[in-house]
Amino acid sequence: MNERALLHIPDSRYCFAVGEKELVLRLRTSREDEDAEVYLIYGCKYEFADRRNRVKMEICYSDRLFHYYEIKLALQDVRVAYIFEFMKGGKTSYFSEDGLTDTYCFEEGFYHFFQMPYINQNDVFPVVGWMQEAVFYQIFVDRFCLGNQEKDKSYINMEWGGIPTPKSFAGGDLRGITEKLDYLCGLGINALYLTPIFSSISNHKYDIKDYRKIDRQFGDEEDLRELVRQAHKRGVRLILDAVFNHCSMDLPQFSDVRERGRASAYYDWFLIQGDYPDTENVNYECFASCAYMPKLNTANEDVQDFLIETALYWMREFEIDGWRLDVSDEVSHEFWRKFRRAVKAENQEAVIIGENWHDAYPYLRGDQYDSIMNYAFTKACLDYFARGRFRAEDMAEKLNGNLMRNMTQVNRMMLNLLDSHDTHRFFTETGGNKDKLLAATALEMVYMGTPCIYYGTEQCLEGGYDPDSRRCFSWEEDTWDKDFLERFRTVLRLKKERSLQQGEIRISAKNEMLCVERKYEGEKLTLYINLTGEERETEERSADMVTGNHVNGKRIGKNGFAVFKGQAERSRI
Amino acid sequence: MNERALLHIPDSRYCFAVGEKELVLRLRTSREDEDAEVYLIYGCKYEFADRRNRVKMEICYSDRLFHYYEIKLALQDVRVAYIFEFMKGGKTSYFSEDGLTDTYCFEEGFYHFFQMPYINQNDVFPVVGWMQEAVFYQIFVDRFCLGNQEKDKSYINMEWGGIPTPKSFAGGDLRGITEKLDYLCGLGINALYLTPIFSSISNHKYDIKDYRKIDRQFGDEEDLRELVRQAHKRGVRLILDAVFNHCSMDLPQFSDVRERGRASAYYDWFLIQGDYPDTENVNYECFASCAYMPKLNTANEDVQDFLIETALYWMREFEIDGWRLDVSDEVSHEFWRKFRRAVKAENQEAVIIGENWHDAYPYLRGDQYDSIMNYAFTKACLDYFARGRFRAEDMAEKLNGNLMRNMTQVNRMMLNLLDSHDTHRFFTETGGNKDKLLAATALEMVYMGTPCIYYGTEQCLEGGYDPDSRRCFSWEEDTWDKDFLERFRTVLRLKKERSLQQGEIRISAKNEMLCVERKYEGEKLTLYINLTGEERETEERSADMVTGNHVNGKRIGKNGFAVFKGQAERSRI
Repeated sequence: MNERALLHIPDSRYCFAVGEKELVLRLRTSREDEDAEVYLIYGCKYEFADRRNRVKMEICYSDRLFHYYEIKLALQDVRVAYIFEFMKGGKTSYFSEDGLTDTYCFEEGFYHFFQMPYINQNDVFPVVGWMQEAVFYQIFVDRFCLGNQEKDKSYINMEWGGIPTPKSFAGGDLRGITEKLDYLCGLGINALYLTPIFSSISNHKYDIKDYRKIDRQFGDEEDLRELVRQAHKRGVRLILDAVFNHCSMDLPQFSDVRERGRASAYYDWFLIQGDYPDTENVNYECFASCAYMPKLNTANEDVQDFLIETALYWMREFEIDGWRLDVSDEVSHEFWRKFRRAVKAENQEAVIIGENWHDAYPYLRGDQYDSIMNYAFTKACLDYFARGRFRAEDMAEKLNGNLMRNMTQVNRMMLNLLDSHDTHRFFTETGGNKDKLLAATALEMVYMGTPCIYYGTEQCLEGGYDPDSRRCFSWEEDTWDKDFLERFRTVLRLKKERSLQQGEIRISAKNEMLCVERKYEGEKLTLYINLTGEERETEERSADMVTGNHVNGKRIGKNGFAVFKGQAERSRI
Repeated sequence: MNERALLHIPDSRYCFAVGEKELVLRLRTSREDEDAEVYLIYGCKYEFADRRNRVKMEICYSDRLFHYYEIKLALQDVRVAYIFEFMKGGKTSYFSEDGLTDTYCFEEGFYHFFQMPYINQNDVFPVVGWMQEAVFYQIFVDRFCLGNQEKDKSYINMEWGGIPTPKSFAGGDLRGITEKLDYLCGLGINALYLTPIFSSISNHKYDIKDYRKIDRQFGDEEDLRELVRQAHKRGVRLILDAVFNHCSMDLPQFSDVRERGRASAYYDWFLIQGDYPDTENVNYECFASCAYMPKLNTANEDVQDFLIETALYWMREFEIDGWRLDVSDEVSHEFWRKFRRAVKAENQEAVIIGENWHDAYPYLRGDQYDSIMNYAFTKACLDYFARGRFRAEDMAEKLNGNLMRNMTQVNRMMLNLLDSHDTHRFFTETGGNKDKLLAATALEMVYMGTPCIYYGTEQCLEGGYDPDSRRCFSWEEDTWDKDFLERFRTVLRLKKERSLQQGEIRISAKNEMLCVERKYEGEKLTLYINLTGEERETEERSADMVTGNHVNGKRIGKNGFAVFKGQAERSRI
């Protein structure tokens, strides 16, 4: 065995409860050891010297370097001691907290077995149920739809459909979204994520000056209430953008500090070097290098209370279904822990989604967020679909590796996206290839987690980096590609499959195609994607095909995909 | 490079702040790659594509399989992006969140650099300062000293000095400890950890029936007040044992449930299958298989409040300096987070020490405990000193590996022990070898963390497993080995060295001796231990020796040790 490749960490993403008496264990080994037989030896920690179970483990995920074995145990006693046993080339060895050894002394096991000391129910990370069925749609509010024709439009400085600059205002608003709810439902959307809607001078509103007021460009409190009412009526959830890392320099508390300096009651709300904030020389912490966005000091209890009360206000008064957290990785863990306690006490089903571009495991252990915007998925899709850096095998390995970053519960809530207001449009990245966009969207639906469609994807909206990725949605139906739109709808509808909502996942390359299998109880759904440039054959029955693009019987053409439905043998995972 | 051996985890024990702008980074590589040059490339995450620093990293710790590079950065900007660069055999490679690659695209770094997104001060794990200077003494109260001659002694059922059974009561009490404070100070002790002192029918009192009352066998509230007063007067800290996982079946709340079943207001304080707890068939959760110790449901808010208020009561009213947490790994993380918030709000300098026998990193990230009883150190000492399983090299590797389980701050507070009321006596494990006991105690002082001496070690008290390891301390001075006692005192006095309190540590094998170096500013202290069975030579100057046993100039004899003091070049770590 390649001992240096072995990895197991108790009470972590490698060992976690998923139910009252259900424990998932994962073990990482080197791919070169795939001929080893791997067993789990486990039992009650108080009886481990005398009584143990032994069960074979199977490879469930594989990335470039490693295999990952996973097993779900149904326990009698929730105080578990365990070690791993390998049989390879006629040799037996054991893996414990003491490393790899030829023998294992069970009598002294209390010093070096692995253990889940006790599954306390308040430590079990629950899945927010509706996230498993959700298909999100992200709306950059100023650019989606102008609904309120009566409002003061004097701030609008671009023509609907023009090319936006950083300072453009197009006029989109909340009523526009309410108007288009039926359109969105028809598309297969059942959850909305709106970029910030609170009072701010910018079009993006990530620099908030009043956290308790809806920006009048977007509407008023009654407009939000009506949007939520109409959305909920249709079974559509709505989450808002919490910009808690920083604010606008026009936030009254910051203005007060600018005026009074250290004498201000709000001086400690910010992180200032000196008596007064100096907006010229920027002697205070701010977002990136944006002097107009001072960083909030979330170690300050008044700031904590202010922000948390803000979050609760919008939840209580407007019944929103959760929060996306802007620049969340720069805010303290301590704050997010307090935030989660308050939010979940208000509504256990409210979802908390961080904006973390990297492995966010430190935030995803159950005490902070539920999920993140899955930019690692984005990057993998870019490398596979748009940049030609990945073959199907590389893609399978990358996706498997990414799944191993988090507990299963988190993977079931990850917000999987191809693009957002912070990236280039994915369609543009593919060089305007509709087949690739469709195949990538199919992957988004079939992959584990919650897909999130950036507004306008269904009409193949183009766009480079900010502000170009924030163009106006076109409501002139004669400009729409109706065939594409219908295919897109069909792909989104896949998410109604129970196997895609709750099933286990296996990802591999088959005949140089990416193959993603989902299984739930007796059902099985399999996606193939073919980017090889030539027609490839699957082993499925063509009669089992549910949907696809460039499919000929059981063969899939260039940039095509196919989804097959079948029966699955019951699995243990 | 052996890519499978590489390990780095951002925002973890591999990447953590130790001060306002100080960040420690660790990287694990295979020992076979020790010829590689390793560099850290880092910079502000918002400028990483354009501006970066590059600094060489050094091997600081080595275990059997891996080298660990460590570096402490003094930062300007606390938003850090970084990757590692290797130069080996004329080849350059890079290690990022994307794995090991031949090239690295800094422009796309925001997708896959490693990062510490922002050092928020409320997330920095502070060291409890006094723990760095503390030498603890663990007292099993019933067996240390009987001080109150006036009390009702009818419960005492063994002669002082006899061999204890599980049901023996010898009569030790709080006044006895107060009486012996001067003795303990003379020994070099400046912190006490008492096993439980609250109302209970057992001699060990780990089954508490009244958490707010001192067991009358041990004294009363005024006795504790006086003990703390006299201890503090002498600069001695005192921590108590918090038994929060379980209680006695005589706890009034459990009695109420036995009487009223589900109708009891306390039914949910416990974890019962059925309408009533059945103490015969044990239909409720309990500690190990002890029906008389029902497990408390620490998910219940009333239980949480009850236990936390108990902790605060003893802190407020009696000014104790912290808590040792019994069976802490079976209590929920959620509870310990709440406990820490309350305890630290009451007294930031109060220490929280868990009883976790295994890698306890999930509890030691800054949101739960400060420290644990370091039984991994115990086990290593057994294998090296008592069982002959480890050569010096194995011991160095084991100790280095154990240090890499936790952040530096935690290592500085680990409660390092050779034995306790839950193990055999270490002296007995060595076959009654005083030289080995002395050398192991020297290691305890020189190793990083807080040493904890089990009462009676200084008089070479013998003892096998519970209850034998809980014999009576002998106060008949003519039975004492005065020479050993004096040597023991000298060893404990070592802890007054600043380098042992605050220094960095390097552990290796030199000439088959275990060699532990501590450096702080210009000072250096080096311990050698020789278990080879024959005399060995050090490279030190004999004039630099501070203390030792079986030392002949610069040569150390069988089972001997020596401590040398010298000057150190300033180091970066």
